[in-house]
Amino acid sequence: MASTADRTSARRPGGRTARVRAQILAATVELVARDGIAGFRYEEVAELAGVHKTSVYRNWPDREELVVEALLQYVDDLGAVADTGELRRDLVDFLMTIAESLGKPTVRALELATQATHDSPAVRRAATRILEGRAAAMRRRVDLAIDRGELPPVDYSLLGEMISGPVHLIVNRGLRPFTRADAERIVDVVLAGIRATTPHT
Amino acid sequence: MASTADRTSARRPGGRTARVRAQILAATVELVARDGIAGFRYEEVAELAGVHKTSVYRNWPDREELVVEALLQYVDDLGAVADTGELRRDLVDFLMTIAESLGKPTVRALELATQATHDSPAVRRAATRILEGRAAAMRRRVDLAIDRGELPPVDYSLLGEMISGPVHLIVNRGLRPFTRADAERIVDVVLAGIRATTPHT
Repeated sequence: MASTADRTSARRPGGRTARVRAQILAATVELVARDGIAGFRYEEVAELAGVHKTSVYRNWPDREELVVEALLQYVDDLGAVADTGELRRDLVDFLMTIAESLGKPTVRALELATQATHDSPAVRRAATRILEGRAAAMRRRVDLAIDRGELPPVDYSLLGEMISGPVHLIVNRGLRPFTRADAERIVDVVLAGIRATTPHT
Repeated sequence: MASTADRTSARRPGGRTARVRAQILAATVELVARDGIAGFRYEEVAELAGVHKTSVYRNWPDREELVVEALLQYVDDLGAVADTGELRRDLVDFLMTIAESLGKPTVRALELATQATHDSPAVRRAATRILEGRAAAMRRRVDLAIDRGELPPVDYSLLGEMISGPVHLIVNRGLRPFTRADAERIVDVVLAGIRATTPHT
């Protein structure tokens, strides 16, 4: 069990403990990607991270908490929507970022693990937080567009699902590459559809 | 190796061989759903199907062919789009059918297996055929709508991806139930968006 002092130093950025924790999380991502959430072993995490097994157990006595913290590391990558002032371009860029990210073996495997483990409360929490991070970024960008009168008031999470759903489908199937033309067509149809179906207030 | 006579009788519906084959395929679906494409064993298929192991090997000497034929069994379920004369209603029903199907543990596991196995040519072929079955059903229904002037000429596969992508995302995440209101909103936005962005000829 970790003492309060351990916990404090563990959170101090740049410290040795922080470095060990980062190594353990990176190793966990890699192993979950390879073997799934149920498949990876603490021994392997320690070996890959180059730390002693007790470091893994001491920092994460709970296996699911380790998985969740490892998964949440990649939230930042997916959570950003730029504001260039042009909504269409920013959403197209957002879709291209998602497509690129989904093409990475690690992220793809994590996606699969998340889908495969509906039953785990910890993983469900992680998935919720990942989606909330993305949804918050979408919301900020969409709110700006609404403020500027580019878009009527809209359910931003459905907007997010409508533009990112087809990207996931196309990339996850692996049947054809996802192109910028796809992203543009999707964003154009969804934005035009929302403008045409949302009542003006 | 199967003789020509065997192959012929195997395809005669209602025959004993056909029954054995159907049992083997059903058992394969169940085991692939549980253990993944790489995980299931011929011994287990035979045991679950209540047949001798040699029946499995004789009918499907190639493991991937067995998986593919088992996967393709569920194409029919997903490949139908009704024609009630009202395009919106038919597409909404189509999305509800997909959502219901994706909620089944077997289909969900098969989806995961398909996504996880981009590298297998046989599985890729099966996935292509499944999608082509669905796309063909969409195309027939959309062609009718275009003929009737309900819709401008449209890339029906992108239309299919745009309406079914969000369903997959929502159901596969398992974060919230997919409702008929979701299906209606998605179909309304996509149809309105296509009408607004497709040049009239």
